[in-house]
Amino acid sequence: MSYPKTAVNKLGRLAKRGAYDYATVHTILNTCPVLHVSFVDPEHPFPVVLPMLGCTADFSNQDADPNDSPQDVYIHGYVSGRIFKKGKEAGDGDQGEHGLPVTIAASHMDGLVLSLTPFHNSCNYRSSIIYGYATLVDDPAEALYAMEKITDNMLPQRWAKSRVPPTSAELKSTSILRVHVASASAKVRTGGPSEDRADLKNEAVRKSVWTGVVPVWPQWGEPIPGNENGVEEVEEYIERWRVGENTKGKAAAYKAIEDGK
Amino acid sequence: MSYPKTAVNKLGRLAKRGAYDYATVHTILNTCPVLHVSFVDPEHPFPVVLPMLGCTADFSNQDADPNDSPQDVYIHGYVSGRIFKKGKEAGDGDQGEHGLPVTIAASHMDGLVLSLTPFHNSCNYRSSIIYGYATLVDDPAEALYAMEKITDNMLPQRWAKSRVPPTSAELKSTSILRVHVASASAKVRTGGPSEDRADLKNEAVRKSVWTGVVPVWPQWGEPIPGNENGVEEVEEYIERWRVGENTKGKAAAYKAIEDGK
Repeated sequence: MSYPKTAVNKLGRLAKRGAYDYATVHTILNTCPVLHVSFVDPEHPFPVVLPMLGCTADFSNQDADPNDSPQDVYIHGYVSGRIFKKGKEAGDGDQGEHGLPVTIAASHMDGLVLSLTPFHNSCNYRSSIIYGYATLVDDPAEALYAMEKITDNMLPQRWAKSRVPPTSAELKSTSILRVHVASASAKVRTGGPSEDRADLKNEAVRKSVWTGVVPVWPQWGEPIPGNENGVEEVEEYIERWRVGENTKGKAAAYKAIEDGK
Repeated sequence: MSYPKTAVNKLGRLAKRGAYDYATVHTILNTCPVLHVSFVDPEHPFPVVLPMLGCTADFSNQDADPNDSPQDVYIHGYVSGRIFKKGKEAGDGDQGEHGLPVTIAASHMDGLVLSLTPFHNSCNYRSSIIYGYATLVDDPAEALYAMEKITDNMLPQRWAKSRVPPTSAELKSTSILRVHVASASAKVRTGGPSEDRADLKNEAVRKSVWTGVVPVWPQWGEPIPGNENGVEEVEEYIERWRVGENTKGKAAAYKAIEDGK
């Protein structure tokens, strides 16, 4: 139930923090509020990096469980036609795969790890890196499927609770990319600080420098109605989601500390 | 006081959300807990993306204010020797610049923007993208300077309050990259939802779909002492920083809603 290790995704450094199973890789991506999508622009030496929204899904096997099946990644966002064409041409040559080669990064920070000396400071984090080939979705049924998935991945039920389906003009002007995953990996750091033996023997240091973890999570605050809002109370499914996310986020940040202790 | 617009950093889409001034670009980067550093691996079609820690600074002009001066970016992290060498060689050809061409992305999510229809959903966010040439810092004085900057950018005063200076073994095994910035830009979305005129006229929709913004910020929770901690109370400067970050983060998320209204 894992992505195979290849020359592309195999972790070199701190390999013991690595994970390749579908559940870990997909969950990190699907709970990350912003994805960073990176690809080569043949005209410049610097990769292009775009912050985008997206999630995993499988249009051809919609009942598949992302915890034990490979998935595609659907991304909502626009890539310049020039880059897309050039990058796709470059990608097409590669072993029968086709599309724009992209790397998708999703990272969560779970805590700041403070040790006796800056050299051993660290962070608790979870990070997924996915490598794949992006193509534009042009089948309207697949585009609709992806839009619903992306919307509800962010806020469950929002699709059905708002004005759908999109008009044909909306559908036409929404750009959705499907990334066929070539390989992927995750890296997870948990626990408290590690220390140097010499520092632990130094009582003056041990008695004066607090060590431990400051946990951190995304906190969703009380919603602010828009200028045109016509509903008095924030709908119950939104509040339930909001409070639930805060509870889960906090629990995950504290669990990360315990897990590695 | 801005990065010049060039073919590399000029924003194409939604250009009115763009900013190029030092203060905006540097502040977004310096307040972002995780940076995504991206560069080309000549052996694979996919860019390499690494989550790393870093901040802006200027070793040759240490009193410069990052709000009105160009800066370098110092990154704490390891890049494979193979990639560094190959990428550096490729980069060296480019107009007298030298180093590994990298793109650094720093993104903050400030809120989920909910409109009457999924097509108009959006996010409030702040994102900096910096393009530059990375070289390994080999001057020990500069490495020390960068380590202190990176440590205190995360948690002010931590450097001086913990066991410093690093031993020579620690200094030797710390890998610091200096990125000379070639160009940079920021993109900022604020405000509430925008709507389609037809949806606003549809009373059934307006009266049933809550619209507005759910703000979000990083919440730092109560610190958990490490197994070897020898200080009873969390030090005051840590608590002050923690509570201050929560207050600032919350205020920024709500201000983003007001700013664009």
